[in-house]
Amino acid sequence: MSKRIESQPQRLGILGGGQLARMLALAAHRLGVEPWIYSVSSRDPAAQVTAFHTVGSIDDKSRIQPWAKNVDVVTFESEFMERGALQGLGKKLAPGLDVMIEIQDRLTQKQRILDAGLTTLPFFPVSSEVQAQTAMGLLGGTAVMKARRLGYDGYGTFILRSERDLRQFVSGPLKKNSSGFIAEPLTKFSREVAIIVARGKSGEIRTLPWVETFQKDSRCLWVKGPVTVPNSRRWENKLGRFLAEIGYVGCMGIEFFEVQGQLVINELAPRVHNSGHYSQDALNVDQFELHVRAVLGWPLPKVELLTPGFAMHNLLGRRDRAATPPRLARGRLHWYGKSEERRGRKMGHVNFLGPSPGASLRAARLAALESW
Amino acid sequence: MSKRIESQPQRLGILGGGQLARMLALAAHRLGVEPWIYSVSSRDPAAQVTAFHTVGSIDDKSRIQPWAKNVDVVTFESEFMERGALQGLGKKLAPGLDVMIEIQDRLTQKQRILDAGLTTLPFFPVSSEVQAQTAMGLLGGTAVMKARRLGYDGYGTFILRSERDLRQFVSGPLKKNSSGFIAEPLTKFSREVAIIVARGKSGEIRTLPWVETFQKDSRCLWVKGPVTVPNSRRWENKLGRFLAEIGYVGCMGIEFFEVQGQLVINELAPRVHNSGHYSQDALNVDQFELHVRAVLGWPLPKVELLTPGFAMHNLLGRRDRAATPPRLARGRLHWYGKSEERRGRKMGHVNFLGPSPGASLRAARLAALESW
Repeated sequence: MSKRIESQPQRLGILGGGQLARMLALAAHRLGVEPWIYSVSSRDPAAQVTAFHTVGSIDDKSRIQPWAKNVDVVTFESEFMERGALQGLGKKLAPGLDVMIEIQDRLTQKQRILDAGLTTLPFFPVSSEVQAQTAMGLLGGTAVMKARRLGYDGYGTFILRSERDLRQFVSGPLKKNSSGFIAEPLTKFSREVAIIVARGKSGEIRTLPWVETFQKDSRCLWVKGPVTVPNSRRWENKLGRFLAEIGYVGCMGIEFFEVQGQLVINELAPRVHNSGHYSQDALNVDQFELHVRAVLGWPLPKVELLTPGFAMHNLLGRRDRAATPPRLARGRLHWYGKSEERRGRKMGHVNFLGPSPGASLRAARLAALESW
Repeated sequence: MSKRIESQPQRLGILGGGQLARMLALAAHRLGVEPWIYSVSSRDPAAQVTAFHTVGSIDDKSRIQPWAKNVDVVTFESEFMERGALQGLGKKLAPGLDVMIEIQDRLTQKQRILDAGLTTLPFFPVSSEVQAQTAMGLLGGTAVMKARRLGYDGYGTFILRSERDLRQFVSGPLKKNSSGFIAEPLTKFSREVAIIVARGKSGEIRTLPWVETFQKDSRCLWVKGPVTVPNSRRWENKLGRFLAEIGYVGCMGIEFFEVQGQLVINELAPRVHNSGHYSQDALNVDQFELHVRAVLGWPLPKVELLTPGFAMHNLLGRRDRAATPPRLARGRLHWYGKSEERRGRKMGHVNFLGPSPGASLRAARLAALESW
């Protein structure tokens, strides 16, 4: 392969072919950065939006290694990858491999959050029946068991309210899942909020507006903002320091519960995140552009809100059928190009701007209901 | 080829591979519409941003016909195509073939404008020495000669101020150009303004804000807005009726001179247009999305301005070299991915929002100067 010269367009490798990779790729194009997608099928959402696509599975070293050699930086849309598969990518990976591995495991993630002096729910590691029983006792007879690895959108989460629930959990999920669980209290929260924080290669921090998020069946349904949260400035400073401490580069999504007037971290996502999709239309710069800029070492623009209110509503699949985008006449449609619609599947989203968060959300919900 | 079923994603054919095709393609992706690009090279700006690209020249029927058969609608980024090449595309072309042919010729374009009762500069057809002399006499000794076909960004335009200019024009350009010229007066205008008007398949009209445009060396350098123009509402109504009369579907760019407090049409472009690029960041819906929606028969959203002021500054090539995008830390960068930078070539643009048109323009010019 011939040596690339400085003035050629930059090549951003993106692992994964889903909607997050697709929207990263579209942001890269706008900036004149070539998105080089590595994913399992040429029909993947991200594969459709670029001329630079390689078909391969994450653990096929004969494909991923030459692909990685050919790009300047490698980023990813999902943190659930094995260390072994990515070892050969070395320093090209951004965010870095160690931090990705640490965050992908709920137990080490929680420990990292505590180490940084940030507040999160109490937790207990659970990898045996005894630990499960103890945790349940200490948590007052109810517990949320979350798989340490590969848990997202509610997968791998079990709510135990009785001895019977506990027995079923122990004989089923706990037995099957070799990487274990963490136990958390079943929290009564007043609402869930989230924030995207970005950190550039030269250390600059950008925080996006705080948003309220709403989950249905453990899956994000809508987001509205901007919202005021307790001690917002203090949290922003702490989170900025946290990203600096772990040497993080790129966007991170941080989800919180608001409990008795205080925020506690629910979980981290070391990547662009569903709670930040509103930024495509409500800000002067969106999370995808910020992430692309950050991992390539470009400067990060200051973040400005363009509207007094905004909302994002996911368009979730209603039933199993071939997929077609709704021809919404209002709001800003972002469709992912998945060929199959399935019940509950994230097919696209719509962003609305309005005079307030609530008004934006009402318009977004109506559009999602009417036209979809 | 197997018959396509209704629920498959729509395929929008786009003739041409330049920046307008690229930005149409990016808008299509967001809507879940597949952009199928037909252009001469797989390195073209538009070819890079889609998995659906066909290499071919416009008059290669063996390539263009099967390509067109495979898409739902065909649109274009340049009106300078021969009727013969597109004849086989039939009703798939939007805007339609007849209107494209009529507008691509400055003489028939001007006649159409007059037929519709719209004001434009007086003009004289010039295809012989006698006509050239007569026109120059009637126009008071100075004239602007514009080639009837293939004239854009100042190509094919000649300003005559003397007998000597006239003789040179007659023996040179007039002799070589078989399709002839039109002569117009050399106008003293106070400024140039422009507007994008879109018409949907079911007849709905959307007008974008009026903007002031500034040309340097006959090429667009910047745009700012919104601006107030004389009789704006009356013009908008007339233009809407004009598009309806000619059965137009899609975006049209309309450029004006402001002369002694009145607008006169300078020229029409039957497509998305450089004067409308600001819409990507200053409006709730941009000209590219409006065009895609219109030609596919989707409903057109109402147009809303998100900011009190905006400006677009083109990033024109400074010298001949390999191209790299500037890493602007402010404004919104739109880069075209052309591999070669050439002096005066449109390489990208930057959009700025601000408290007024003037403030936005100052910021945009500074960014363009500093970082480029």
